[in-house]
Amino acid sequence: MKIISINAGSSSLKFSLFNMDNESVIASGLFERIGIEGSNYTIKYSGEKVSEEIELNNHTDAVKVLLDKLISLEIISSLEEINGVGHRLVHGKDKYTNSVIITDEVIKDLDEFKEFAPLHNPANILGIQAFRDVLPEVPMVGVFDTAFHQTMEKETYLYSVPYKWYSEYGVRKYGFHGTSHRYITQTVKEIFGREDFKLISCHIGNGGSITAVKDMKCIDTTMGFTPLAGIMMGTRSGEIDASLIPYVMEKEGKNASEIIEDLNKNSGLVGLSEYSSDMRDILEKCDACDEKAIVAKNKYVRRIVDYIAQYYVLLGGADVIVFTAGVGENSVPIRREICEKLHCLGIKIDLDQNSKRGEIVKISSDDSKIDVYVIPTDEELMIARDTIDLINR
Amino acid sequence: MKIISINAGSSSLKFSLFNMDNESVIASGLFERIGIEGSNYTIKYSGEKVSEEIELNNHTDAVKVLLDKLISLEIISSLEEINGVGHRLVHGKDKYTNSVIITDEVIKDLDEFKEFAPLHNPANILGIQAFRDVLPEVPMVGVFDTAFHQTMEKETYLYSVPYKWYSEYGVRKYGFHGTSHRYITQTVKEIFGREDFKLISCHIGNGGSITAVKDMKCIDTTMGFTPLAGIMMGTRSGEIDASLIPYVMEKEGKNASEIIEDLNKNSGLVGLSEYSSDMRDILEKCDACDEKAIVAKNKYVRRIVDYIAQYYVLLGGADVIVFTAGVGENSVPIRREICEKLHCLGIKIDLDQNSKRGEIVKISSDDSKIDVYVIPTDEELMIARDTIDLINR
Repeated sequence: MKIISINAGSSSLKFSLFNMDNESVIASGLFERIGIEGSNYTIKYSGEKVSEEIELNNHTDAVKVLLDKLISLEIISSLEEINGVGHRLVHGKDKYTNSVIITDEVIKDLDEFKEFAPLHNPANILGIQAFRDVLPEVPMVGVFDTAFHQTMEKETYLYSVPYKWYSEYGVRKYGFHGTSHRYITQTVKEIFGREDFKLISCHIGNGGSITAVKDMKCIDTTMGFTPLAGIMMGTRSGEIDASLIPYVMEKEGKNASEIIEDLNKNSGLVGLSEYSSDMRDILEKCDACDEKAIVAKNKYVRRIVDYIAQYYVLLGGADVIVFTAGVGENSVPIRREICEKLHCLGIKIDLDQNSKRGEIVKISSDDSKIDVYVIPTDEELMIARDTIDLINR
Repeated sequence: MKIISINAGSSSLKFSLFNMDNESVIASGLFERIGIEGSNYTIKYSGEKVSEEIELNNHTDAVKVLLDKLISLEIISSLEEINGVGHRLVHGKDKYTNSVIITDEVIKDLDEFKEFAPLHNPANILGIQAFRDVLPEVPMVGVFDTAFHQTMEKETYLYSVPYKWYSEYGVRKYGFHGTSHRYITQTVKEIFGREDFKLISCHIGNGGSITAVKDMKCIDTTMGFTPLAGIMMGTRSGEIDASLIPYVMEKEGKNASEIIEDLNKNSGLVGLSEYSSDMRDILEKCDACDEKAIVAKNKYVRRIVDYIAQYYVLLGGADVIVFTAGVGENSVPIRREICEKLHCLGIKIDLDQNSKRGEIVKISSDDSKIDVYVIPTDEELMIARDTIDLINR
């Protein structure tokens, strides 16, 4: 069976076409600048890469071109080979605790929840409508970023703010990156051959979140009402003292939304280093003894260690810590520093193993009290798995 | 030698008169509603208590009445017995890392730093001026709430926000309750007979903060740019996702400062329980199975446990955890719940010991990996000690 995984942005559409018989990627690619001058696409398949600048007025145009190309490039022989389409959906609030077959109600809810994800939910709807236009008969599944986290207890997901902010306005911790954390959880289950483990899943990319998982269920996660909260990220601050907002508003003559914009886009690594949001750049500057880069890197590591410590105690101990996403999969020195700072929890790192890349690898030494793994995440595959699972029911 | 410790608020003045030969309290009391209709005072001494409604137009009036009463009640025989006055001062920014003899420069700095403590610093100046008016010859010492925390490293006290917010506007973690955490640190030194210990000091009152201390120095603390940050408190939220501020502003038609006011005064225990900011009330409601009170209490405990876990790892293990202040000294069930949740760090509580009150008591059992103590805090004594220490130099 063949499944397409879709991640639709406001002017972009990312796809992966899977052969689900062996979970292999047949083709993948990106449509960019949809509805904007200079729209284009790139499709990769069988070691080939095709790029073209082409007029794409809307997401439906992009889907039409995608399907035409899949056939003309002989990636598939007919559209009937496509058994289902899975969509990455961002915000399902507390209503969607699992993936679902996409119905009119789902689309209506996405629209209703758009104030919680004003950039993402409307874009997700565009992606869904485009496939409805072009492939009306093919079943579609929605996989929410928030769904995995809806098993948190009330004392975890509530903020200690006026209760009315929750009951009337929906202010609470929702959590994000759920599809990635769920993929990691399932992969650990395959490695361990059991479900009763305590996992701290560290999705550390440009954005980043850490999730505590017990018996396959999320019990806490670092992102919150929005993706701003939690650990320090490439451009996001993570948690701060909220009182600085009116203070900086006055200093800079900005409004609250502009300060939140600064906290989302001009903070984190780039804010403290005044140089880059990319850990590779920061590490280069650290090697050159740049003080701001060193402080930024140390704080970044510290915030991750802080949350691992919290979740270790919350879980009552941990069986396994997993690193994934850009920094988690690729930054050998950051993983080493994090593990070294966790020494008092009995974690020991194997430096040879830690230098490996691009595969599932156990980086803790045999006498480490907690296993530490690097597991490349695969949200697209998770979406495809959910899609086939739901359409086969 | 006799020393007066003063804590001046905008319309109040709290004092303790110490005999520093044996560190005993000779008298203590409170002047309230200064400059407001219904001003009054209460003085306690030798088991007696005197209260009176009396016109107090300003802090100088209060100090005059105080000194008159100390003599007319025969608590002291002449003003010359007063060797020094110690003032609790709130915000000394990063300039004041220790207590100081109060000079014109100190007063000028308090005024300059008032934007960081708009309620407290101006009130502290009123208290100083009043004693300058009435006892111009007696040396005065200022003891800053922020001073103990100024040993934090840059990567700890900086927020991961645009660097300019720190370098140009002074946005950073300052920390508060420093006098209490320092008192606890000195008391632990006396108990242990050494200085090389790792301490997690939990000052848990209506306000609350937790400080990590290594070799007598603060290495991190939970309060931040303002006292809003860190753990959940009686009426304060502690750390939250800052993105909820513009969201709630729009829902409630409030400005950012009004939301921060809600986070300071209508959040924490009272916000979630919709009942009370006092833990005793919350525990009563919990006994009656009130769901909101139970969630509020559990979240309160959880946030304290979260930071103890963080600091345990930051310190590379801990020798001792201390509970102090209102809830920390008096709430037997809250201490028990916190310790039970820390079980995976090897902490074991002695339930008999934990039921004691009003004295220094070790509440961990002999086989606990970390000692846990209750130590009643005494900021007034700490201020008096600093005062005598500095005026004797």
